[in-house]
Amino acid sequence: MNLLAIGAGIAAISGIGAGIGIGIATGKAVEAVSRQPESRGSVMQFLLLGGALSEATAIYGLLVAFLIIFFMKP
Amino acid sequence: MNLLAIGAGIAAISGIGAGIGIGIATGKAVEAVSRQPESRGSVMQFLLLGGALSEATAIYGLLVAFLIIFFMKP
Amino acid sequence: MNLLAIGAGIAAISGIGAGIGIGIATGKAVEAVSRQPESRGSVMQFLLLGGALSEATAIYGLLVAFLIIFFMKP
Amino acid sequence: MNLLAIGAGIAAISGIGAGIGIGIATGKAVEAVSRQPESRGSVMQFLLLGGALSEATAIYGLLVAFLIIFFMKP
Amino acid sequence: MNLLAIGAGIAAISGIGAGIGIGIATGKAVEAVSRQPESRGSVMQFLLLGGALSEATAIYGLLVAFLIIFFMKP
Repeated sequence: MNLLAIGAGIAAISGIGAGIGIGIATGKAVEAVSRQPESRGSVMQFLLLGGALSEATAIYGLLVAFLIIFFMKP
Repeated sequence: MNLLAIGAGIAAISGIGAGIGIGIATGKAVEAVSRQPESRGSVMQFLLLGGALSEATAIYGLLVAFLIIFFMKP
Repeated sequence: MNLLAIGAGIAAISGIGAGIGIGIATGKAVEAVSRQPESRGSVMQFLLLGGALSEATAIYGLLVAFLIIFFMKP
Repeated sequence: MNLLAIGAGIAAISGIGAGIGIGIATGKAVEAVSRQPESRGSVMQFLLLGGALSEATAIYGLLVAFLIIFFMKP
Repeated sequence: MNLLAIGAGIAAISGIGAGIGIGIATGKAVEAVSRQPESRGSVMQFLLLGGALSEATAIYGLLVAFLIIFFMKP
């Protein structure tokens, strides 16, 4: 039986959080940078830091999905 | 049995996050650019950066779905 | 058995994200353009860029649904 | 067995996103047009553009439901 | 077995989106029209346009439910 596939699929759902979160962060970043253009460098740095941290949660789900697909025996 | 199909379908759901997130980011971007038209370049750059990071989470789900459909044995 | 149908159906759900996200972006766009009518061109450009990125997430789900319906064997 | 019916039903759920999204966009549109009546033309144009992009995500779900009902063999 | 009933029931769930969305739009409309009573005509027009687009998503679900009930064989 292939319950493995269902498990991998469920793991991939975790990407929803990062998708929404990075969107919110980006939204606030463009707002900030358009109001204080001189803050551009700092904002970019923060967005990259926060985006990376948030993206990591999606990659955890991807990693679990990969482990299930490639290392578990059916 | 084709539980593979269900697994792939579930993986595709992860696109919800990026869909909402990019929408929020775009909303803030149009708001920012209409208020400070001179910030257009920066805003576009940030939106593309954030949009790409967010879109990636949807592509992770797509990748898992593809792996399930094409590489797992039923 | 036709678990394929259930898998395809689940994949189609991913359209929810883009539906909400594009709505949020459009809402902000009409707000922006009514306040600063002269920003119409930029706003349209950003809305199309963000809308396309967001719409893509729904199309990923549609793609997975199509793959399940047309390429997987029951 | 008729798992096809369940699959088609699940696909139809994707309409939730567009339903909410278009509502948000319409809400902002009426707000904008009542404050700046002279922006009526632009607002209408943006609402139709965004509404069409958003509505499309519901139609993707409808399309998948139709494919399941009419093209898949039980 | 009557999985058809479950499928039709699930399809009807899609009405949630339009229910919420039209509610948001109507809420903004009454707010707008009470602040600027002279904008009554425009607001009504926009609400009808947006409401129709949003309502359509619920009708898609209804359509799928009808198809399942009347055209699928148990």
